[in-house]
Amino acid sequence: MIISMKLHATREEIDDVRKQVEHFGYKVHSIEGEERVVIGVVGVGDVTACMESVEALPQVEKVVRISAPYKFVSREFRKEKTRIRVNGTEIGGDEFVVMAGPCSVESEKQIMQAAEGVAKAGAKMLRGGAFKPRTSPYDFQGMEEEGLKLLQKAKKATGLAIITEVMSDRDVDLVAKYADVMQVGARNMQNFMLLKALGKCGRPVLLKRGLSSTVKELLMSAEYITAHGNSEVLLCERGIRTFETVTRNTCDITAIPALNELTHLPVILDPSHATGRRSLVPALSRAGVAIGADGLIVEVHPAPEKAISDGAQSLDLAQFQKMMKDLEPYVRLWNESRKTQALAAAAGL
Amino acid sequence: MIISMKLHATREEIDDVRKQVEHFGYKVHSIEGEERVVIGVVGVGDVTACMESVEALPQVEKVVRISAPYKFVSREFRKEKTRIRVNGTEIGGDEFVVMAGPCSVESEKQIMQAAEGVAKAGAKMLRGGAFKPRTSPYDFQGMEEEGLKLLQKAKKATGLAIITEVMSDRDVDLVAKYADVMQVGARNMQNFMLLKALGKCGRPVLLKRGLSSTVKELLMSAEYITAHGNSEVLLCERGIRTFETVTRNTCDITAIPALNELTHLPVILDPSHATGRRSLVPALSRAGVAIGADGLIVEVHPAPEKAISDGAQSLDLAQFQKMMKDLEPYVRLWNESRKTQALAAAAGL
Amino acid sequence: MIISMKLHATREEIDDVRKQVEHFGYKVHSIEGEERVVIGVVGVGDVTACMESVEALPQVEKVVRISAPYKFVSREFRKEKTRIRVNGTEIGGDEFVVMAGPCSVESEKQIMQAAEGVAKAGAKMLRGGAFKPRTSPYDFQGMEEEGLKLLQKAKKATGLAIITEVMSDRDVDLVAKYADVMQVGARNMQNFMLLKALGKCGRPVLLKRGLSSTVKELLMSAEYITAHGNSEVLLCERGIRTFETVTRNTCDITAIPALNELTHLPVILDPSHATGRRSLVPALSRAGVAIGADGLIVEVHPAPEKAISDGAQSLDLAQFQKMMKDLEPYVRLWNESRKTQALAAAAGL
Amino acid sequence: MIISMKLHATREEIDDVRKQVEHFGYKVHSIEGEERVVIGVVGVGDVTACMESVEALPQVEKVVRISAPYKFVSREFRKEKTRIRVNGTEIGGDEFVVMAGPCSVESEKQIMQAAEGVAKAGAKMLRGGAFKPRTSPYDFQGMEEEGLKLLQKAKKATGLAIITEVMSDRDVDLVAKYADVMQVGARNMQNFMLLKALGKCGRPVLLKRGLSSTVKELLMSAEYITAHGNSEVLLCERGIRTFETVTRNTCDITAIPALNELTHLPVILDPSHATGRRSLVPALSRAGVAIGADGLIVEVHPAPEKAISDGAQSLDLAQFQKMMKDLEPYVRLWNESRKTQALAAAAGL
Repeated sequence: MIISMKLHATREEIDDVRKQVEHFGYKVHSIEGEERVVIGVVGVGDVTACMESVEALPQVEKVVRISAPYKFVSREFRKEKTRIRVNGTEIGGDEFVVMAGPCSVESEKQIMQAAEGVAKAGAKMLRGGAFKPRTSPYDFQGMEEEGLKLLQKAKKATGLAIITEVMSDRDVDLVAKYADVMQVGARNMQNFMLLKALGKCGRPVLLKRGLSSTVKELLMSAEYITAHGNSEVLLCERGIRTFETVTRNTCDITAIPALNELTHLPVILDPSHATGRRSLVPALSRAGVAIGADGLIVEVHPAPEKAISDGAQSLDLAQFQKMMKDLEPYVRLWNESRKTQALAAAAGL
Repeated sequence: MIISMKLHATREEIDDVRKQVEHFGYKVHSIEGEERVVIGVVGVGDVTACMESVEALPQVEKVVRISAPYKFVSREFRKEKTRIRVNGTEIGGDEFVVMAGPCSVESEKQIMQAAEGVAKAGAKMLRGGAFKPRTSPYDFQGMEEEGLKLLQKAKKATGLAIITEVMSDRDVDLVAKYADVMQVGARNMQNFMLLKALGKCGRPVLLKRGLSSTVKELLMSAEYITAHGNSEVLLCERGIRTFETVTRNTCDITAIPALNELTHLPVILDPSHATGRRSLVPALSRAGVAIGADGLIVEVHPAPEKAISDGAQSLDLAQFQKMMKDLEPYVRLWNESRKTQALAAAAGL
Repeated sequence: MIISMKLHATREEIDDVRKQVEHFGYKVHSIEGEERVVIGVVGVGDVTACMESVEALPQVEKVVRISAPYKFVSREFRKEKTRIRVNGTEIGGDEFVVMAGPCSVESEKQIMQAAEGVAKAGAKMLRGGAFKPRTSPYDFQGMEEEGLKLLQKAKKATGLAIITEVMSDRDVDLVAKYADVMQVGARNMQNFMLLKALGKCGRPVLLKRGLSSTVKELLMSAEYITAHGNSEVLLCERGIRTFETVTRNTCDITAIPALNELTHLPVILDPSHATGRRSLVPALSRAGVAIGADGLIVEVHPAPEKAISDGAQSLDLAQFQKMMKDLEPYVRLWNESRKTQALAAAAGL
Repeated sequence: MIISMKLHATREEIDDVRKQVEHFGYKVHSIEGEERVVIGVVGVGDVTACMESVEALPQVEKVVRISAPYKFVSREFRKEKTRIRVNGTEIGGDEFVVMAGPCSVESEKQIMQAAEGVAKAGAKMLRGGAFKPRTSPYDFQGMEEEGLKLLQKAKKATGLAIITEVMSDRDVDLVAKYADVMQVGARNMQNFMLLKALGKCGRPVLLKRGLSSTVKELLMSAEYITAHGNSEVLLCERGIRTFETVTRNTCDITAIPALNELTHLPVILDPSHATGRRSLVPALSRAGVAIGADGLIVEVHPAPEKAISDGAQSLDLAQFQKMMKDLEPYVRLWNESRKTQALAAAAGL
């Protein structure tokens, strides 16, 4: 932590800061600049509490945190990428994993058609919401447990693993009975009660980045799950909110390699929510493979024009099949690049 | 709803759209422009489902919703401002109401000092968190029920009403036992499970605007609470997230009169989170009174430099007292303006 | 400047940083933390060049600038507020100054009606664009010099000072012949060639904040004008671009007191562009007075529904007159507050 | 254009709107909904003026523009992609074009080393600023004409075409003497005087997207250049400003395929400014190729740690060479995809 004093801070005011910091168990190094005094803080302690307390003192200009606020999820804590095994597939490892399916589970026919179609095209996991976070109380809120049962049926029929959303700490046990991966939606990324409960759910968690959450906040939310006992967390970039309206959200694709530098957790791209427009999904998916994501989660519906939600951004089965085919040469390059990285790592580079 | 077709849409494609819309029970009016066809949709039905379905059709350029997606909270539903009575004080009526207190309940001594200080300065309600949403799992998470009991004690000693945060639908009953007003934090504005539970809690709710939520989304979240049975909702502007870093958030103060046009619900300003800096709180509070907010919620701590959280934006008791004194002439102008509005309303203007 | 090294930086890498910094003439203080080394940089030199150079070195985690990048415009350079005298009125002093008029000069009749109307209502300056920055090349681009001549005519008739926009360094001399204050539009806030030319124009400059410019960038642009010879700069908050669409822009009203802490330059609020909606202008103007702006610049048109541009946000003359009347008690409080500040300053507080 | 009236608009108010619209030469179609009246406007006229005028009328809720505000740059105006020939290379055609070089021209030695290095690695154009838009007046402002002469020298030695920035309409002729492509920086995207002058400069223009400009505003600025006589415009995505700070800007990569739907102009990606961090440039460049950009513009410096500007985001020559090598298989896939598109177009699909 670095504390920068205001220009005209007195000796006494600087001493007050020093005392406050030492009170938290830290050591202090002052640097007397031409213009102002800067105080370096060294040691181990409750960083947040100390920072907030110092910021409240008069004549303190700015407090800058140097160490990262997360620990378990950082690359510094763990060098090799975390591999998460789900139903025979390994995410974060040598396979580029595609999850696909409709926004909502709507009926047995719909989810079975979707599951068979995406399995045939090469997806390894089936997505589909049974609990739906909808902006309006008047919109379809999901089939709830009945929907979860239909997902289970689709799993039996196709062998696909199931990823589905959980919206409240109250529902964690129920959803965990049916899901292979628990999904946290963007609007719940900082629902800390839910994150804590997921720390104990015994299932991998896919954590979607909030609409206006920073990369560091995403990591802090992953740290919540990890610190409460569950280290199997998948991060998901799904677009952030900006001023641009030509797409539904703005895909912050560079967050993917940036996350790869900061964390060992796998990162999945959701090109459907990121764009909100079906016609842009294949191009963005290609970019996702090329930039080094560990997988995709894509909205696919057997009849998008009859979808209860997100029809405009859903591919139909033929479009998804074509996209998967077109991705193949990019996935081959991805595989080669992973092998090169693995060799480099093995050689200690 | 207005549907704009792409430039080269064929007769057939336009007919497909028409059929899809009629399938939802709506009537259709086509307008043949020089360049393209625009379809007006009239009637009553499931707007969202119809919109999403039409957006998924090929050759549809854009779908624009005309009617507001909320109903109970709109000015069109109810002309006069909603007045919410809390512990003898009426919010949304003839009194400018100030809520004040620390970010977190930290100890009996701290909350009693805070309560006595803010009561003396003229606040009518005591704020203080017992459940704390913290970005880091390693930060203080609140005193939970013990904190709620201390708030109750402070209420008995001072007569102040209590406003405190609830973070999960699981905790609604517990918090409702102690709180006069249930607070929903910015990060939970779209925690729909929580909103539904608050619809049945029997207490007024203060709903904070999400960091990157639009005014319309705020109204939709209020509609959730209302549609589930609770019409006593206070809205709160507390700053949104932008690129600017000189303040913690960017106060969207114009949202206050904009909300007054759109809704009958009272609107409260939180100048502490909006700025993140104690020195800016009094100026922004003046602006809040002048622009027509129904009240303020302000962070005040007996010893900000010892606060566990939000020290930098908390006023101490003397500063709060001075601010309340300085606000007096502005509150007098506010009172006059409310009287003028009431007279105009009574005269049918 | 503070340089934070990566976790596993070697002695050698730290020495490389040290050498690089010393090469720019600075002195270096290392702080050895538990986890990493932090280097404090002290002295006088080319900060930007040094920072950019150090950031380019491997194993450097982060470089944080401590000193402000602006000088002449800072409060530390000059304690008392700058007062700018324009045509007998002093901005930044004891008078709350209102500038008003149409978006564009459209005709002699229009500008004369506008000028007479706003003068009668109490405005001291007439705004009106002769060079118009329009998003579309097909929209009205302004009357150019003919428009400037009409403004001069309006000045003669009413005694109002003229403020009008200049869009290119090429036009600075021409506009300066007619204008009392040169306006820089939001889209030109970082048109550095224009800023340099305005440093030598011999007229005060009103510098509008860019749509996505930070407060610090606004100050840097003011520093450009000042560093090139012109210290009479008025800053203008006119709303920034965010995700919110209920208003045309989002007024960052807290920037006004934040600027008052950082700079001695006067700050003007433009409630018309900030809201984009006529009905919100009076409320935001009250807030602007209450928060301590030095004046307002308001769009007023004799017949807004016939305006060539910005009709939706323009008040008509009767509305402007009513607003000015309603502002009176707030301006009285503003005057008292300035007197109290002046007394406090004189007493050395 | 669609005009939505307020809920309680009277017959008379609706008629006023109708008259106003007809006054601009348009025809009117009313749709009487359950709740409100919506007016469709059909015909040819001055859309902006009509919209602004109608928005200014009372009881108008919202005006939505249906037709695009740009014409020459739209895909509807011209189906095939524009190919721009520069110094023997064709951009927008069958070749993926890389432009590379330092942020600023600093010295003869530096620019010659850079030019030779990037040419050897496969770049076709040399970038380098002689006029530099710098946030601070105290930072290096560029070598101006002397820098342009050094670029010319580098062109002679290497055969690379030159792309360099012009900052004022005053300098257009001077820069055009030396540059093969005129660059407009992000901060000047809406410097309309400059855009107009570039319409007559006789050189292709690379137009960088503004920090907070929408895709539509970018197209409108391109329309300015085109409408003033120059149809050779390259668009450039270089990151937009958001709340995220882990990268310098947020790359809106999806804007590239979105632009490809809306316009026939080529689109270039600048991975250096988009990320601000050298380590992220290669990954983002791969994504740019995969998503279908027409080329890249990359910052490369022979000694980034000695660069006067943008050192942290510049690759050195070895890194650039490695990146170009690693891009090869992606560029091959790009070439195949272009061939497939060309065949499909030829077959009339």
